[in-house]
Amino acid sequence: MYRPQLTNAARPATVTIAAVNEHGEAVPTQIAGEHPLTLYLDKREIVTLMTLGGAPEALAIGYLRNQRLVERLEDIAAVQVDWETDSVAVTTTRSADDLEERMGKRTVTTGCGQGTMFGDLMEEIEKISLPAQASLDEATLHGLLDAVRHHESIYKQAGAVHGCALARGTEILMFVEDIGRHNAVDAIAGRMWLDGLSGEDKIFYTTGRLTSEMVIKTAQMGIPFLVSRSGLTQMGYDLARRTGMTMIGRAQGKHYLLFTGAERFVRSAAPVA
Amino acid sequence: MYRPQLTNAARPATVTIAAVNEHGEAVPTQIAGEHPLTLYLDKREIVTLMTLGGAPEALAIGYLRNQRLVERLEDIAAVQVDWETDSVAVTTTRSADDLEERMGKRTVTTGCGQGTMFGDLMEEIEKISLPAQASLDEATLHGLLDAVRHHESIYKQAGAVHGCALARGTEILMFVEDIGRHNAVDAIAGRMWLDGLSGEDKIFYTTGRLTSEMVIKTAQMGIPFLVSRSGLTQMGYDLARRTGMTMIGRAQGKHYLLFTGAERFVRSAAPVA
Repeated sequence: MYRPQLTNAARPATVTIAAVNEHGEAVPTQIAGEHPLTLYLDKREIVTLMTLGGAPEALAIGYLRNQRLVERLEDIAAVQVDWETDSVAVTTTRSADDLEERMGKRTVTTGCGQGTMFGDLMEEIEKISLPAQASLDEATLHGLLDAVRHHESIYKQAGAVHGCALARGTEILMFVEDIGRHNAVDAIAGRMWLDGLSGEDKIFYTTGRLTSEMVIKTAQMGIPFLVSRSGLTQMGYDLARRTGMTMIGRAQGKHYLLFTGAERFVRSAAPVA
Repeated sequence: MYRPQLTNAARPATVTIAAVNEHGEAVPTQIAGEHPLTLYLDKREIVTLMTLGGAPEALAIGYLRNQRLVERLEDIAAVQVDWETDSVAVTTTRSADDLEERMGKRTVTTGCGQGTMFGDLMEEIEKISLPAQASLDEATLHGLLDAVRHHESIYKQAGAVHGCALARGTEILMFVEDIGRHNAVDAIAGRMWLDGLSGEDKIFYTTGRLTSEMVIKTAQMGIPFLVSRSGLTQMGYDLARRTGMTMIGRAQGKHYLLFTGAERFVRSAAPVA
């Protein structure tokens, strides 16, 4: 299986600072790491991501994948993270003209901190069809929620991070926490490429809200199930219906709300897979 | 006081959908509105923001302010929101060349959904000095947290939104909820311009995490106090120290953690202002 040349430059997840509480007591407090990581694609500066830094190589690859700036893992020759300069250099085997073309289209609608490539993404969405035959039963959902609880290490220590998981049944294949939930999703998208995993038999879990971008990225990865402990937005709902995704929110313990794609969900409790 | 020509095109905050709970019961569920709003500055497409749509004119102005694409409210002639086309057209009195120059600098480092104008913002930060003489006492903090609780309407109904407040003492001058906390901050920055309010005697409250972007935007508005019920990231901590901001997190009920700028905070409980 193809693997680009990769550094392995994960950063410590938390640091401890001295805070003062309401009793005037000094309280050593663990906080989540947050580091700028400027992404260069074939020497061209693309974006600066603020990241926890736990999976910077996968984040860079997944960002380029989800932004459609790189089409296949095989196009990536090397991913080199250098925290001395807070940068990640991605080298591709594609021509510069090819990148200019992609970037040209891109920079029209990109924004800063909040922007979405709305036009392009809507076109993408129309093309996606998620597998109809996939199914998820209630017991498996419960088992998955249980498994997630054991993974959330940084959140428990420091808060201020979102967690995302890629699961097959109740088995969590990847769990990534980051400052921004988009970073966590991108890092998983990057690792799916690196590990040669497809989405059709997977479940995507996020601690974050089910917004349009979360639904779009899950659909882009070809994953039919999106589960969150949090709430839902109108656009997230509309896009989940449009892509035929099975979306479950407010999922905690034995509680959940099934929002869309009921045909893939089996309520009667079956034994946990 | 100067006011550009403005539409007044707020959208309903929530819609009700039918979800199914763990008992198989249909549960009418209120969800937060989320709408694409494509911002055109002098006919040039800048970004598509996903927003609740509660204060689209202020959001557009504040976005342009915080992105440094417009320098003064007086440069804005009109802000016209049209939900038929999900767009907001901002007309300025500046020349097209002027915009090209700003955009040129900008598009180098802007990203999609996650990007930050890191380089430029760091330069900005170095220039900011927050008022040293401002002070906040514990009783005022308690009163403010109490006041915030009465404002969070959409969050209580539908979740999936962040709330931001601009306060003077315990008096909440503005409260904005939106899908993204950056939108909520930008909408407040926009309204501060429209209402001719400066930041030096204000407190900024957010339900969201104290990340680098939250600290940077608060500093850009000249506000010396940043309060959140949530946690803190390393970069948020570093930037708050660098700008000399008084930052308080995990603030709920009588509890809080004072992270930076202790010299402006008075612990001994004084009567609520």
